[in-house]
Amino acid sequence: MFSKKFVKKIMPIALSTSVVLGGSLASFTGEAAAKPKDENGKVKNVIFLIGDGMGSSYTSAYRYLKDDPSTPYTENTAFDKDLIGMQETYSWDEEESITDSAAAATSMAAGIKTYNNAIAVDMEQKEVKTALELAKENGKSTGIVATSQVNHATPASFGAHDKSRHNYNDIADDYFDERVNGEHKIDVILGGGTSYFEREDRNLTKEFQEDGYSHVNTKQELLENDDDQVLGLFAPKGMDKMIDRPEDMPSLKDMTSSALDRLSEDKDGFFLMVEGSQIDWAGHDNDIVSAMSDMEDFEEAYKEAIEFAKKDKHTLVITTADHSTGGMAMGRDGEYQWNPEPIKAAKRTPDFMAAEISDGANVERTLSKYIDLDLTNEEIESVKDAAEDGSTTEIDNAIEHIFDIRSGTGWTTGGHTGEDVIVYGYGPKSDLFAGLHDNHEVGQKVMEVLDSHKSNHKDYEDGKREEDNKE
Amino acid sequence: MFSKKFVKKIMPIALSTSVVLGGSLASFTGEAAAKPKDENGKVKNVIFLIGDGMGSSYTSAYRYLKDDPSTPYTENTAFDKDLIGMQETYSWDEEESITDSAAAATSMAAGIKTYNNAIAVDMEQKEVKTALELAKENGKSTGIVATSQVNHATPASFGAHDKSRHNYNDIADDYFDERVNGEHKIDVILGGGTSYFEREDRNLTKEFQEDGYSHVNTKQELLENDDDQVLGLFAPKGMDKMIDRPEDMPSLKDMTSSALDRLSEDKDGFFLMVEGSQIDWAGHDNDIVSAMSDMEDFEEAYKEAIEFAKKDKHTLVITTADHSTGGMAMGRDGEYQWNPEPIKAAKRTPDFMAAEISDGANVERTLSKYIDLDLTNEEIESVKDAAEDGSTTEIDNAIEHIFDIRSGTGWTTGGHTGEDVIVYGYGPKSDLFAGLHDNHEVGQKVMEVLDSHKSNHKDYEDGKREEDNKE
Repeated sequence: MFSKKFVKKIMPIALSTSVVLGGSLASFTGEAAAKPKDENGKVKNVIFLIGDGMGSSYTSAYRYLKDDPSTPYTENTAFDKDLIGMQETYSWDEEESITDSAAAATSMAAGIKTYNNAIAVDMEQKEVKTALELAKENGKSTGIVATSQVNHATPASFGAHDKSRHNYNDIADDYFDERVNGEHKIDVILGGGTSYFEREDRNLTKEFQEDGYSHVNTKQELLENDDDQVLGLFAPKGMDKMIDRPEDMPSLKDMTSSALDRLSEDKDGFFLMVEGSQIDWAGHDNDIVSAMSDMEDFEEAYKEAIEFAKKDKHTLVITTADHSTGGMAMGRDGEYQWNPEPIKAAKRTPDFMAAEISDGANVERTLSKYIDLDLTNEEIESVKDAAEDGSTTEIDNAIEHIFDIRSGTGWTTGGHTGEDVIVYGYGPKSDLFAGLHDNHEVGQKVMEVLDSHKSNHKDYEDGKREEDNKE
Repeated sequence: MFSKKFVKKIMPIALSTSVVLGGSLASFTGEAAAKPKDENGKVKNVIFLIGDGMGSSYTSAYRYLKDDPSTPYTENTAFDKDLIGMQETYSWDEEESITDSAAAATSMAAGIKTYNNAIAVDMEQKEVKTALELAKENGKSTGIVATSQVNHATPASFGAHDKSRHNYNDIADDYFDERVNGEHKIDVILGGGTSYFEREDRNLTKEFQEDGYSHVNTKQELLENDDDQVLGLFAPKGMDKMIDRPEDMPSLKDMTSSALDRLSEDKDGFFLMVEGSQIDWAGHDNDIVSAMSDMEDFEEAYKEAIEFAKKDKHTLVITTADHSTGGMAMGRDGEYQWNPEPIKAAKRTPDFMAAEISDGANVERTLSKYIDLDLTNEEIESVKDAAEDGSTTEIDNAIEHIFDIRSGTGWTTGGHTGEDVIVYGYGPKSDLFAGLHDNHEVGQKVMEVLDSHKSNHKDYEDGKREEDNKE
C-alpha cells in the first residue's frame, strides 16, 4: 500500500513530533546536489527524451508505484531531482486546440507552432529545419530511438517532413532519401516498424544496408553490433510494452545505451532523440498497467542518458512530454486513495491477457496466471461476460476496469488533454529551460544550443552585448 | 475559441515559416526578466498564497481562459513567470494516501507530515509550532485571509491546533485563546465564518473587540478601517464565489490588499497566509465555471502580493496548492478541444442558478438571464427534467453538465487527486523552493526563512560552513 501506515512505528519521534528547522531534513527530496557545476559550460551533445503522453499525473503516479513503503517519505524517481520547469502544449490547429503528437513534436523539433498531423512542416505545409538536421549540418552524429514504429509522429518530426503523420511509408522514405550535405541524416535508427521499411514497392532496409548501414532485428544482434550507422527494427509496427516484451526484443534502455555507444564515437558530438512512445498508447487505452510499465521503460532509458551525461560533462539532457493523455487521475469516485499494489500485481498488460482470452484461453486461468491477486467472483464474471459477448477490446476494457477500481485510477478521455507538462533538465545550458515555456520555445532553445558555435548565434550574442552596454 | 484559428492570417511569414534561432522569440513566455536581483537577500516578510485544489490542470485551463485569441501565442497569467518547481502532496493518513486540505496545510504550515483532518498536530495529535506562530514569536505581525470560513482547514492549520478540522468552534476559539508571548497571535483575520465566531455559547467577535480588534462585516467597512488588528467576517460560513458576490462583499484581492496595508506597518515584518479556498470547492462540485471564477479571484490577490513584494524588495512570496481536486482535465470523450468561451458566457455559478430555479424561478428564463449562450432545446430540457424530479444538487449537476460538454472539461472524482502541484516563487530566498520538494519541506523552508536570523539557523549555517571547509 502506498499509504504510509507503519509510519508511526518506524518514525523517530524527533521527526514526527518536532518542528525541525534549519534545513536538516532538506535532503529527503529535490535537492540539486547531483547537478554538474558547469551548467553553463559548452554543450557537445544533446539528448532529447520525450515521454509521449507523460503528463504530471503519470510521473507522480509512477513515483508512488516505485515508492518503498517501509520508509516514511517517498523515494524520488530518476526524473525528480532534475525538475526545472514546465511547457505549454497547445497546437495551432484550426479545429483542435489540444495538440496531437505530431504538432507537439514539430514544435520541440523545429521551434515553431503548427497544426495537428504536421510532421516538421509549418502552417503552410512548408518544410522546416529540425534540431536533428541542424546537428547533422554542424557535423554531429544523430539518432532516433522509439518504442513505437520509428516512423511514428514523434521521431518522424525530428527526421522527416510530411503534411501528414499518417503517410508512414513516405516518412520512412524520408529517413533514407532526405540528405544533409549529401549524407544520410540519421545515423542510428532504432525502434519498431519493419512493415514500413520492407514493403512490396520498396525495401528501405536493403537500401540502407547497401549504403553501409548495419541492419539488426533482435536484442542480441543489436548488442553484438557496434557500427556507427545502424537500422534496428524490432517489430512490424510498435514494439511490445515493457512487461509483455519477449527476451529477444530490446528495451528502450538497451536501444538508448546502444545508440549512445555508437554516437559518442563522433568527436564532433551528437544529437539523440529518445521516445517512450507507448506511455501515450497506454493512456489512449485508459490502461494504467501499461502506462506504469512503459513509465519504467522510459525511466530506465533516462538513467542511461543521465549516466552518460554525468561522465561526459558536455551533454545536455532535456526530458519532457508532448502532452498528457487520457485525463488520467490518481483518484476516482470520491475515494482518497490511490493504491499501486494491484498494478504491480500484473505480469502482463490487459491487452496481452485479452488477446489470449480472445484466442480461446480460459478466462479464470488466464487472469490467475497473469495477475497476482485474489480476484473476486464479480471481477472474474465481468471479464467472462465481456468474453462471451464482446470483442477483444471489450475484454481488454473489462480487465482494465479491475485495475482502475482497485488502484483508484480515473480517466476522462481516450484522447489527449491540454494541461502543461513537466520539463526536466540536466547538464550545461539546462538553466535555459527553467521556468515555464511554450513547446516551440523549448525547440528553439535546443536548436540555439546546437548552433551556439555558429555565427548567427555569435551575432545574436554580440547584438545582445551591445544592447547591454547601452543600458 | 481558444483555437488559434486566425493565426495564418496574422502571423508574419517570418515567424510561421522560418527556423528562428538565437532566442529572438524567447520573450513570448516564461522569461524571468521581472525577477528581483537580490533573490538571496534578506527576507523581512513572507506571503504564503495557497490555491486550494489548484492542480496544474486548473492553472493551465485558466491561462487558456484568459488568453487573447487575437494574438498567436497564449498570454502568461500572473503566476506563470514565477514557476519554479512542484511539490508532493501525499499524507501520512493510515486510511487515505491522498491528502485532505488539513494534512497538506499542516505540512506547509509546520513542516511535518500528518494524518488527514489534522490541524497543526502530528501523528500523535501533539500540537506543532506553525510558521505563523514562529513569525509572531519573532516579533512579526501575522494575518490569515480566506474565502472559506476563516476557521476552515487551510487557514486553521496556520493559526490553530486541533485533532480534527471538523471542530470548527474549537478552532475559532483557538484564534482567540492561543497566545504567543501572552499576545494574540493573529493580527488580521479576514474571511467568512460569522456563525462560528458569534455563537450562543460564546461571542468571539465581542471578545476580540474587547481586546482592541476592529470588527468589520462589509467591504465598505473593511476599506474604511485601518487598524492594525482586525477581525473581518463577511459571510456566515464560506463567502460567495467571485462571480456571485454581492457588491458589499470584498474580493480576495480586497482582503489581501487590506491585510498588506495593515501588516506592512510593522517594522519587524509580517507573515501573511492567503487562501483561494473555493477553487477546491468548485472542484469537489465538478463545476468548471466556479473553478475559473475563483482562479481569477486568486490571481487578482496574487497580483496584489507580487506588486507589494516588487516594491518592498524584502518580501518572499510562495504560492502553491495543497492538492488538486476533481480529476479535472482539459479534454473529455476523445475530443481534442478545450473551449473556454462557454465558461466565460456564465454570469453566475451553476449553484446560484440552481438555487433560484429550486426556489421556483422559471428554468428557461433563469438560464437565459445568467448564461450568454444560445442553449439548445435539449440542454434546456435537461435542466427542466432535473428541476421537475430532483434536488437543487441535481439541477446544479444538469447545468454544470452543459458547461462540461461545451467546454470539453472532464472529471474523475468528487474528491481530491494525488498528483504533484506547482510551486511559484518570487523574491529573496525563492530559489530555496526551486525543483521538486515534499510539502513538509516547503513548510520547513518557509520556517527556515522566517527564523533565519536566529541562532539555530546560524548554528546550521556555521556547521555547514565547517563541513564545506572540510571538503
